[in-house]
Amino acid sequence: MTPLAITMGCPAGIGPEIILKYFAYPVNHQQPPCIVVGDLNVLRFYAQQLGINYSIVPWLPGDNIPSTKNIIPLYESSKLSNNSIHPGTFTKKTAIAMASAITSAVKGIEEGWFSGLVTCPISKEALQESKHHYPGHTEMLAKLTASKNHVMMLAGSSLRVTLATIHCGIAQVSGLLNKELLLKLYRTTHKSLQVDFNIPFPRLAVAALNPHAGEGGMFGFEEEEIITPSITAAKIEGIDLHGPFPPDTIFFKAAQGEYDAVICMYHDQGLIPFKLLHFKDGVNITLGLPIVRTSVDHGTAYDIAGKGIADPTSLAAAVELASQITHNRTQQQDL
Amino acid sequence: MTPLAITMGCPAGIGPEIILKYFAYPVNHQQPPCIVVGDLNVLRFYAQQLGINYSIVPWLPGDNIPSTKNIIPLYESSKLSNNSIHPGTFTKKTAIAMASAITSAVKGIEEGWFSGLVTCPISKEALQESKHHYPGHTEMLAKLTASKNHVMMLAGSSLRVTLATIHCGIAQVSGLLNKELLLKLYRTTHKSLQVDFNIPFPRLAVAALNPHAGEGGMFGFEEEEIITPSITAAKIEGIDLHGPFPPDTIFFKAAQGEYDAVICMYHDQGLIPFKLLHFKDGVNITLGLPIVRTSVDHGTAYDIAGKGIADPTSLAAAVELASQITHNRTQQQDL
Repeated sequence: MTPLAITMGCPAGIGPEIILKYFAYPVNHQQPPCIVVGDLNVLRFYAQQLGINYSIVPWLPGDNIPSTKNIIPLYESSKLSNNSIHPGTFTKKTAIAMASAITSAVKGIEEGWFSGLVTCPISKEALQESKHHYPGHTEMLAKLTASKNHVMMLAGSSLRVTLATIHCGIAQVSGLLNKELLLKLYRTTHKSLQVDFNIPFPRLAVAALNPHAGEGGMFGFEEEEIITPSITAAKIEGIDLHGPFPPDTIFFKAAQGEYDAVICMYHDQGLIPFKLLHFKDGVNITLGLPIVRTSVDHGTAYDIAGKGIADPTSLAAAVELASQITHNRTQQQDL
Repeated sequence: MTPLAITMGCPAGIGPEIILKYFAYPVNHQQPPCIVVGDLNVLRFYAQQLGINYSIVPWLPGDNIPSTKNIIPLYESSKLSNNSIHPGTFTKKTAIAMASAITSAVKGIEEGWFSGLVTCPISKEALQESKHHYPGHTEMLAKLTASKNHVMMLAGSSLRVTLATIHCGIAQVSGLLNKELLLKLYRTTHKSLQVDFNIPFPRLAVAALNPHAGEGGMFGFEEEEIITPSITAAKIEGIDLHGPFPPDTIFFKAAQGEYDAVICMYHDQGLIPFKLLHFKDGVNITLGLPIVRTSVDHGTAYDIAGKGIADPTSLAAAVELASQITHNRTQQQDL
């Protein structure tokens, strides 16, 4: 099986630590093996902090891949000096190393070395410092793969949500919504549930933007003028979607199993209920890319970096889901 | 014990049904008795629909109060004709009857007949039809009791939230926030947790408006210019509050017990997580009124009115909480 790439994330965050902890899990031979893309000194630094003694084995395309617990195959994308790593504080150098891991991994997928990408957390500020002026991973990966219909999904066992707008202030959301954007979102979500999640007939719910779904126009015009027409258009295309629903009740219903995903109008509308249900085991996925990409659903957590208390559960779930999606995409191609 | 008033809500909604079902609960003699404020024909109509045969006993101030299961003492606030009641469809007449129950109950509290108010659901549209031009109960009760610092709280066993803005579109939220409004909200929430909930040292969390708490200004200015300064000012007053926190993680922490309440910037920010945890047993409370007021936390549910499937759990929780608050306020006054 072609391996998955795991990028190390920000060297000042908890990414390296959760990678080290993840490689202590029993090896699952049903999954593709994982190659870490990152910096040897960063992994060594945190291994020392954690007091663990893994073998970190440099890996190059074509090399055999060790599939033994506690052995980490590493594709080196940067060479930081030991004294440049400070948990909780990124620098220009660590920011550039962080970004290199991402660009190297994407290149590796394009070269066929990796079957998909699992990313550890970066911070928006560090990304700016590295001169990659994107608000986050999702937008950067869309640019690197020349994708126009990328969609952020958060997925867990109880709830899946996709987002119409992501990294913007609440005051900007209304101005960013339009019928075409929503239609693209419905199509990408629908298609991905079929192909990536192997759900032949996905049932989608659309959350309204405003409280009480706008209460007949009293609390906002967006439902009547933008969201409802977009739903009507998508239904004509054969997409099974419903709404717009009052945002405060639809997530309970979806989590009860009534829908396969909830389409959300803004970041926190989706992430508040998602993280309440999947605080530890949630996965962030970018739909609509030519490459498979999953991610932990938490941030760099600079406040606890280097303290040894970071939880690798979300990383394990992200690897598992990337493995399932690669499998499902291959099956679909074989049909 | 002075009785609590329960208003019937919209005659076309599920209020009358949940009242009938609530009066089938075993009588709790630790709680004050309840008087329904509403319309005899409305209760009779739904009793017939449900196929139940309760005694509905007209009650006037000074009368004894029956405290037996299945006997409903009713203070009549309107007289609708039988043929004017249609489940799911309100009319001008039913809307006026709906509003009369509220104004009569408030008058009854001011006269000392009732110790507090528990409200069943109304709809904003019906309220407009009755010529009471308020977006909801909360604003109407604030006006009726000449209160300026009213606050909507949703309370359950795992989570309490209060709201800085309520019935407005998402696009309006930012423009409505200011430091003075937030300071009043912190003070009212703090004070109510002490007096109404008997928590001597309340711990409050403030949710940011924007995703990632604004990410250092990249996703909005409101955290830096409005919310953080308001928190600083409240801390100087001795209020134990923290934040602004990224909205997608604070509710999990509060539900784990780290905070006694989360202050939210807008309706769905608080109601999405609240209803996910307390879909059936949540209670809506108006803080900062001279009267005690709790409510079910759901709407009129016109789509299921008259079908016999409405759930009285939230009403039972609202009565229980109104009873606790009346008790706590009396104790505090006695100190």
